Amino acid sequence: MDRPMNVCVLVGSLRKASLNRMLANALISLAPPSMKLDIVEIGQLPLYNEDLETTAPPAPWTAFRQRIRAADAVLFVTPEYNRSVPAVLKNVLDVGSRPYGSSVWDCKPGAIVSGSPGAIGAFGANHHLRQSLVFLNVPTMQQPEAYLGHADKLFDEEGKLASDGIRKFLREFMQAFANWVHTTRS
Amino acid sequence: MDRPMNVCVLVGSLRKASLNRMLANALISLAPPSMKLDIVEIGQLPLYNEDLETTAPPAPWTAFRQRIRAADAVLFVTPEYNRSVPAVLKNVLDVGSRPYGSSVWDCKPGAIVSGSPGAIGAFGANHHLRQSLVFLNVPTMQQPEAYLGHADKLFDEEGKLASDGIRKFLREFMQAFANWVHTTRS
Amino acid sequence: MDRPMNVCVLVGSLRKASLNRMLANALISLAPPSMKLDIVEIGQLPLYNEDLETTAPPAPWTAFRQRIRAADAVLFVTPEYNRSVPAVLKNVLDVGSRPYGSSVWDCKPGAIVSGSPGAIGAFGANHHLRQSLVFLNVPTMQQPEAYLGHADKLFDEEGKLASDGIRKFLREFMQAFANWVHTTRS
Amino acid sequence: MDRPMNVCVLVGSLRKASLNRMLANALISLAPPSMKLDIVEIGQLPLYNEDLETTAPPAPWTAFRQRIRAADAVLFVTPEYNRSVPAVLKNVLDVGSRPYGSSVWDCKPGAIVSGSPGAIGAFGANHHLRQSLVFLNVPTMQQPEAYLGHADKLFDEEGKLASDGIRKFLREFMQAFANWVHTTRS
Repeated sequence: MDRPMNVCVLVGSLRKASLNRMLANALISLAPPSMKLDIVEIGQLPLYNEDLETTAPPAPWTAFRQRIRAADAVLFVTPEYNRSVPAVLKNVLDVGSRPYGSSVWDCKPGAIVSGSPGAIGAFGANHHLRQSLVFLNVPTMQQPEAYLGHADKLFDEEGKLASDGIRKFLREFMQAFANWVHTTRS
Repeated sequence: MDRPMNVCVLVGSLRKASLNRMLANALISLAPPSMKLDIVEIGQLPLYNEDLETTAPPAPWTAFRQRIRAADAVLFVTPEYNRSVPAVLKNVLDVGSRPYGSSVWDCKPGAIVSGSPGAIGAFGANHHLRQSLVFLNVPTMQQPEAYLGHADKLFDEEGKLASDGIRKFLREFMQAFANWVHTTRS
Repeated sequence: MDRPMNVCVLVGSLRKASLNRMLANALISLAPPSMKLDIVEIGQLPLYNEDLETTAPPAPWTAFRQRIRAADAVLFVTPEYNRSVPAVLKNVLDVGSRPYGSSVWDCKPGAIVSGSPGAIGAFGANHHLRQSLVFLNVPTMQQPEAYLGHADKLFDEEGKLASDGIRKFLREFMQAFANWVHTTRS
Repeated sequence: MDRPMNVCVLVGSLRKASLNRMLANALISLAPPSMKLDIVEIGQLPLYNEDLETTAPPAPWTAFRQRIRAADAVLFVTPEYNRSVPAVLKNVLDVGSRPYGSSVWDCKPGAIVSGSPGAIGAFGANHHLRQSLVFLNVPTMQQPEAYLGHADKLFDEEGKLASDGIRKFLREFMQAFANWVHTTRS
């Protein structure tokens, strides 16, 4: 591609001061120049209900679907709620997958970063999300995996990444993701 | 217990003509007299957002939490969306689990029926839900498992269960669930 | 029960100096007096092959099946190999589940401790194992969960538990397990 | 590639008359000419035990590792045992992943066909296997998925595929796999 890749970033928490939103911003700032990333807001999407799938579906659904359809790739940055994917993030998978035969996810390469204040780094959310992405045909980068435990310790008081180690890891993650998008879209 | 058990039924689809709602109604009608079951509506709950967890959280959250807290047990009847739990059902797990330390799910016995028009019977949703219920400390009945594939074929044109076989299976499922609730709450 | 519960402990690593074997021994020493626990060796069981399920199956299979059948409960202590259950532990699930209709696991209460030198505490193995135990009808304790990350740091140079914190956690885990066995077998 | 791709086929059942072995043979016969596939026998591999990882590990381990290392891709054809991957198949994942730093799986493209006589088509085994393959960095084809339920009905009395429908599906699966290997190895 001559132009930068257009990548949608989807954050699995609606909290304003969300650790995963901070991670998403850090990832955006560390991405290689070949990628242009933007957070797509998802809190306003009504819960998926097939009865609303009329000739005039909810406007936020339509806007979201157009946004993803226009993207070259998607980056999921998510906490774990109750050992699985937060409802707000699962909802966009459901909304984007319909109506039947018109999924916006099909063949869109993806990657997952999961973060939590606990030790486990949202492993359960990470892999439940992967199971959905198999069905949605989102070729999902496998390595490196990114389970960011103790995510609150990754930032300093000003909300900047606190160590060179984490900066290096996230930069390499984004470079690998750029390579993955390049490979799978070729 | 001298009084009938009070069981909340949570349906993972918002569609009015939902197969899983039909299944839920069938399960209610086949339950033993020791159980009193009611479907709790969940479509109106705002997506979980910790920022709304103030001294005045959304009224539908509070109503839902009170409803579950008062129940003796919960029955989940759910389709699979994209190989996992529909967002609308995941959302009530998230809402009910908070605020931290006040989960309404703790020690509430549960059971899962998953149904889909496809062959697989929503296996993926069924087991992702189970992973959350481990964390939420909902002792969940293990056997019989209920993966109801080709669920559209289970009903006749009037929406009644079409065969004695499925009626027998669901009746035995509900009897086993009643026994499970009795055992785990003793 | 008037006599102590007879509990089989199954360790998911064959390594002599296995961290999980050390954990298993620690759990045994911290269990309440109402439980008598023994590690059952599993490395000698041939890989499950239905063709060997004749009138004279492999002797180690028969011995293993008799051992589990006589037990009141089972405790799994396991590392994670490649984000899932080690083959050696999966093999005993498979061997014990057959021949069809004669599973030794049915209605045998269980609990899981998973440990790893990494941060995640073998979460993937823990939950894959739980999915099998649903089918095998092993009522499995849900809380507390035990994901023991950095398991190599839990022991001092003499192989004793290094802190009062971990001793307290494991003692409470075993007490909860004793209660769980008591509840589910009543 | 100018030469045909060299693909190892790994069958998750040791039974001589295994349905999945029949499926594997059918897949081999329906593959495009660009692929050369061979079943690699796995029943003779000792259970993984790190203590055997000496300068002279078990000969079957070494032979297996060399075999996979030389391959361009791997095809897994597996039943489900107790809602997960059969031990015999998990064992080769474990053996091939070691010693640390020398995994034979790394960057080897893969695909999964899961089959069972029951309705569900070994969904649980299929996805547990996928979770391991994320860690092992086996880029795994996502679509089409292949859950072959009622697998015993797919063959006629002579062990040939019984319908044009299944032949077409498996042929297209193999063509998609050839494309996937081509894309991910480029």
